[in-house]
Amino acid sequence: MADWKNLDTLKSFDELAKAKKVVVKDVMAGEAGAARVKKYNMPMAEGMSFNYAAKAVDDTVLDLMQKLADEAQLTDKYAELYNGEVINTGEKRLVLHQLCRGQLGNDVVADGVNKREFYAEQQKKVAEFAKKVHSGEIANAKGEKFTTVVQIGIGGSDLGPRAIYIGLENWAKKTGNFKMEAKFISNVDPDDASAVLNSIDVAHSLFVLVSKSGTTLETLTNESFVKDALKNAGLDASKHMVAVTSETSPLAKSSDYLAAFFMDDYIGGRFSSSSCVGGAVLSLAFGPEVFDAFLKGAAAEDKLATNKNILENPAMLDAVIGVYERNVLDMGTTAVLPYSQALSRFPAHLQQADMESNGKSVNRFGEPVNYKTGPVIFGEPGTNGQHSFYQLLHQGKDIIPLQFIGFKNSQIGNDVDIQGSTSQQKLCANVAAQIVAFACGKDDENNNKKFDGNRPSSIIVGDKLTPETIGALLSHFENKIMFQGFLWNVNSFDQEGVQLGKVLAKKVLAHETDGALSVYSDMLGI
Amino acid sequence: MADWKNLDTLKSFDELAKAKKVVVKDVMAGEAGAARVKKYNMPMAEGMSFNYAAKAVDDTVLDLMQKLADEAQLTDKYAELYNGEVINTGEKRLVLHQLCRGQLGNDVVADGVNKREFYAEQQKKVAEFAKKVHSGEIANAKGEKFTTVVQIGIGGSDLGPRAIYIGLENWAKKTGNFKMEAKFISNVDPDDASAVLNSIDVAHSLFVLVSKSGTTLETLTNESFVKDALKNAGLDASKHMVAVTSETSPLAKSSDYLAAFFMDDYIGGRFSSSSCVGGAVLSLAFGPEVFDAFLKGAAAEDKLATNKNILENPAMLDAVIGVYERNVLDMGTTAVLPYSQALSRFPAHLQQADMESNGKSVNRFGEPVNYKTGPVIFGEPGTNGQHSFYQLLHQGKDIIPLQFIGFKNSQIGNDVDIQGSTSQQKLCANVAAQIVAFACGKDDENNNKKFDGNRPSSIIVGDKLTPETIGALLSHFENKIMFQGFLWNVNSFDQEGVQLGKVLAKKVLAHETDGALSVYSDMLGI
Repeated sequence: MADWKNLDTLKSFDELAKAKKVVVKDVMAGEAGAARVKKYNMPMAEGMSFNYAAKAVDDTVLDLMQKLADEAQLTDKYAELYNGEVINTGEKRLVLHQLCRGQLGNDVVADGVNKREFYAEQQKKVAEFAKKVHSGEIANAKGEKFTTVVQIGIGGSDLGPRAIYIGLENWAKKTGNFKMEAKFISNVDPDDASAVLNSIDVAHSLFVLVSKSGTTLETLTNESFVKDALKNAGLDASKHMVAVTSETSPLAKSSDYLAAFFMDDYIGGRFSSSSCVGGAVLSLAFGPEVFDAFLKGAAAEDKLATNKNILENPAMLDAVIGVYERNVLDMGTTAVLPYSQALSRFPAHLQQADMESNGKSVNRFGEPVNYKTGPVIFGEPGTNGQHSFYQLLHQGKDIIPLQFIGFKNSQIGNDVDIQGSTSQQKLCANVAAQIVAFACGKDDENNNKKFDGNRPSSIIVGDKLTPETIGALLSHFENKIMFQGFLWNVNSFDQEGVQLGKVLAKKVLAHETDGALSVYSDMLGI
Repeated sequence: MADWKNLDTLKSFDELAKAKKVVVKDVMAGEAGAARVKKYNMPMAEGMSFNYAAKAVDDTVLDLMQKLADEAQLTDKYAELYNGEVINTGEKRLVLHQLCRGQLGNDVVADGVNKREFYAEQQKKVAEFAKKVHSGEIANAKGEKFTTVVQIGIGGSDLGPRAIYIGLENWAKKTGNFKMEAKFISNVDPDDASAVLNSIDVAHSLFVLVSKSGTTLETLTNESFVKDALKNAGLDASKHMVAVTSETSPLAKSSDYLAAFFMDDYIGGRFSSSSCVGGAVLSLAFGPEVFDAFLKGAAAEDKLATNKNILENPAMLDAVIGVYERNVLDMGTTAVLPYSQALSRFPAHLQQADMESNGKSVNRFGEPVNYKTGPVIFGEPGTNGQHSFYQLLHQGKDIIPLQFIGFKNSQIGNDVDIQGSTSQQKLCANVAAQIVAFACGKDDENNNKKFDGNRPSSIIVGDKLTPETIGALLSHFENKIMFQGFLWNVNSFDQEGVQLGKVLAKKVLAHETDGALSVYSDMLGI
């Protein structure tokens, strides 16, 4: 059994904190900088690579990072997780999202069920259902094919599947894998559901209701919205809806749905894209083969995360570097900057995955910790961000570590040659230029035009954004978050911080308020 | 003339820094908390209000904030700005975006032109053009009406107009003001333009090319993309495009465009939504009357920002509170949380407006400053964010100040009653609940379920999101950013930090690289 200890009790962390700091600007200069970019690079799955040359590391620091990874037993803890230990101690649950995409260790049997088989079986049910929808065997009351799929879900039931859908929409259209348009309803703001419903042909739409508990207020409310719209169109709602839920939820056996697909309590919402939470909508939109390819990419990256050698484990190195930046270099925010318009909502998904997992102040035993934990995560695609918030990243008072992502090729392949280069070349030139600008800076007599440099960044480079590569990317960040949670010794798999707001909102709706809450409620017209 | 001094040289700042800290949790409790919520509230334009009860202020702190505003001569500096002084000292330019929506002071004459008249005249040209497009007087080669408008622009030519378009799209559809669908192309990623072009009927599309200099690489590249698509469809591109640019740019007198509308160097990109950068696309999409209403709301809020009394000047108080949080309470990030799906991209626009303006390390005289300047800004709409990153906001190690926005009514007006309340009521109940949860927290024997509270927030409450209220919101934040720049003594109107990346990207494309840049270029296949 692994030994769960606070970060600040680890001897190797103390050594790492005391090690000589690497000045990124110095080490990235000249031919030594070029050699460094070649050296500090490691393969990821699906032909991608993780380059950390522009991070504040050298061989000494990397050795200490290996020691820290060893002392914190990071891969041992990962093994406990995928072998089915109760890693989510607060809620006394296993943590099994990786099992949706492959089996890295022993059979995991819980509640008398082999969980790998269970998840695979659910995905098989989804695949069969999707194929029947695509063939027209499952159709609307008039026997016409469904053309649109609408996911109703919020948080983990929305952000990941939506980011992946946007990530693959153009790829699917280009490669002939586009089966149905997908839309998403998430917010309890009635304008969200209304606008989506106004934009679709409900008679040819299939709705995927996603709520693990079957009790998420936003989602049930939006279900009613949809049922009203179907009823108003003279349609039988139960012929237009499927449920993704747990077997024990009130939705599981309801006759209100064409079908029900199951996940369980061992898959947290923010990690559920690989389960049928992502599987249903993505298999319907792009076909089950595409979703399988996504799982394959994620599984391959999961495998890399088992490597004990930190230089062969991109997620683990990325995690340790992030903790070093947060707890030694005192940097409080991280920007995720994909140079790919298709990844426009990927940072929003990572924002949830990371901040909800590691935005904690107590360790896994419920004891307050005396060090910083998860950072704020934000980001927008490049080159858009360059014309927006990069000013602060380059010349602001705080140093914000950067996580770039880039691909050599576009998804659609249309391009124009202007001033001797294609748009794709311009895109790639910009990300290369930014890394060096952030790292090396530029001196100038005019302080206003001076760049201090020393802004650390890493980049993940791939050939093209595909189902496999987006799967690998997702796995990389999920595992990075997991390893960081291990280092901070927090439970990355619960979210008690979302409860109080829910409780108070119920009080407002029940008109059981007093004090400040009562005045705010009046002000907002409730 | 105002006296431009660094924040840390102001006596009143020192006093403010030394004042007794207000414990939000304590002052917000019980009936005293209720009284406070009623008291710490001030009117904004268009029936909105700014409530700062959950901020770390009391009467003493507010008095010191007034002293700081006075000593820093905030409203005097604002008056210099709207009276046409050279406030953007780095680029030696006036700063005149407010003049697009009204005239608060003297006539501003520059280059022999009355600038208020100039901006009004350009908007009149836009309005006449838009009306002709709507009536069909300006039509495609076959004499058919244009149905879609596509804005081609990046950064300031994209984020603000896009956020406002999304903000008003459902309102316009509901109120019969929806004239044409708008789309946006921004990224140099070729998949951005390709995907938009694949989604529209180019024969019935009008393109608005926006580049003040007429030299923005992304925008010119995307123009070529569009011209290719028009040519491939057998269409005359010059009959499908208008330009928004400066009179001195290469685009200004080109026969490549149906029309050209002008702004000038006195309107920075990130502040240009009120000029024809926003005016063209929004007048085409919703009609010029709607854009006029937007300007009216902004003008009314601009007027409030002239008040010397900080308790009657929401933008100024918001600004001073933000500086207090950044420089006294040491909080480095601010979250913008609109409880309105229609404002889904408003935080991304504010992220640019704020971080590009105040993400600086030197003062307006080019001297390094010894205090923190602009914070990181991020946000997503509620209730979505509650199911995402709010965990960290509630229980993370860093305190993140929060800026809520809420409206009593939805835009579309469709709603369902579930469990005794409408969706709109649930939405409003949630934002009220969150403010109190963040401020007051909750004790618990289990540390994991304990909320420390003391998370400061403010809320802007309006009746409904309309052209007028979104105009007032935009003005509020633009002026907040301006006042904060005055306090930090930085030039909020240049962006030298974006230059180095551009220079290096050109080197990559010209294959004039060495060192690290050369290896990164190879890695990315350039």
